[in-house]
Amino acid sequence: MMNREYIREGERLDDLQIKGYGIIQNPESFCFGMDAVLLSSFAKVKPHEHVLDLGTGTGILPILLEAKNEGAHYTGLEIQKESVSLARRSVKYNGLEKQIDVVEGDIRKGSELFGAASFQVITVNPPYMIGEHGLKNENEALYIARHEVLCTLEDVLRESARLLVPKGRFYMVHRPFRLPEILAKMSAYGIEPKRMRMVHPFVDKEPNMVLIEGLRGGKPRMKVEPPLIVYQRDGSYTEEVLRIYNDE
Amino acid sequence: MMNREYIREGERLDDLQIKGYGIIQNPESFCFGMDAVLLSSFAKVKPHEHVLDLGTGTGILPILLEAKNEGAHYTGLEIQKESVSLARRSVKYNGLEKQIDVVEGDIRKGSELFGAASFQVITVNPPYMIGEHGLKNENEALYIARHEVLCTLEDVLRESARLLVPKGRFYMVHRPFRLPEILAKMSAYGIEPKRMRMVHPFVDKEPNMVLIEGLRGGKPRMKVEPPLIVYQRDGSYTEEVLRIYNDE
Repeated sequence: MMNREYIREGERLDDLQIKGYGIIQNPESFCFGMDAVLLSSFAKVKPHEHVLDLGTGTGILPILLEAKNEGAHYTGLEIQKESVSLARRSVKYNGLEKQIDVVEGDIRKGSELFGAASFQVITVNPPYMIGEHGLKNENEALYIARHEVLCTLEDVLRESARLLVPKGRFYMVHRPFRLPEILAKMSAYGIEPKRMRMVHPFVDKEPNMVLIEGLRGGKPRMKVEPPLIVYQRDGSYTEEVLRIYNDE
Repeated sequence: MMNREYIREGERLDDLQIKGYGIIQNPESFCFGMDAVLLSSFAKVKPHEHVLDLGTGTGILPILLEAKNEGAHYTGLEIQKESVSLARRSVKYNGLEKQIDVVEGDIRKGSELFGAASFQVITVNPPYMIGEHGLKNENEALYIARHEVLCTLEDVLRESARLLVPKGRFYMVHRPFRLPEILAKMSAYGIEPKRMRMVHPFVDKEPNMVLIEGLRGGKPRMKVEPPLIVYQRDGSYTEEVLRIYNDE
């Protein structure tokens, strides 16, 4: 079996429904969610652009972004060894070694690692929760992915501001409850919020995600987009979400 | 005709569809819009609370708030003489002289006028546009209501922070394109954004208004509410907007 080369015990290979790409995940530690898929569609990469995904985990974002865009190159930065290994094997499985690099390292040292102004685009699906709140009985990989233990919003924005070229674009998915802090800190770090979209599970429910685009050195004026509604009343996906998943 | 007492040439009396209240407006200068109606329903006033509406114009907000809530007293502050006259006559027409005061004065001197920590609730439907952009051929009253000529967002927040008691509530309607600045400045002035609702003309259109509640001295954590959709696909009002207009 070809897959034996790539997949280790306890892991599984999931079909990404795009270009025949797959992703290797360990359901015991962390599987990508809808936030990564929506961010990969909200972010836009132009030809010849270099993209960095901060805290790439299993590499889901670089892989989806590569599938959907004509960018020159994608780099995923990840601090957890197990995730780096998974991401590298997924890249190899998809034959994307030339297009995607997975680098083991700390977001807090991002600009030291790559140098200032080295990317046109940064994407990030950061830990949503402040400090060490939340369920303590999660496994470590999951806990680090969800809580600001190894990296805070402040770290992400400071390093992104350094790593982006002038007029470089920053794409993030986060939780709406932190929006005042997110927008204020983006402005403070010179990554001006330019576009925002709320994601609501149902049209009459509160949003559980927010997608934000910032522009390094941009002028203040934000476009708020129509709400992204995930489910219809009957619980089936809306047409827009189906289009995003099928990359139509 | 009884109305002759109240209404001057060029003015008209509109029925507010609540408690038999009316409002006197001059269609040549400024008529209230949906933003005022939505704000009057988004804002909540508890019994015994004192409310200040900054830049009250024709007095639409104090009148609607009085109709919908059990607050102790409402004050409208307005700088334009013609608007003060209209607002006072509407208050009189509705027999609300005990419940509502209309004060002629400058928002920028609000805390001098009323003293610090003198209100539990502040509402404001401020000029949306920065500086002196926009259509220059508008009449002066309309221009002042729409543009930050006599008062900026900064003025509104600085004075509101002084005028509110600790844990006092601040309710504002504004334009989404200024959201990063609004949220950052609210936090900076100690009026922490706690609740926000986007108003979309149609479910698949960008929002054209945002309703925000802040808490004087509150902790950071914002609740984003479901989108408020104004029209159904066929162009008729949604049930929620009909309920707001009919105060159900």
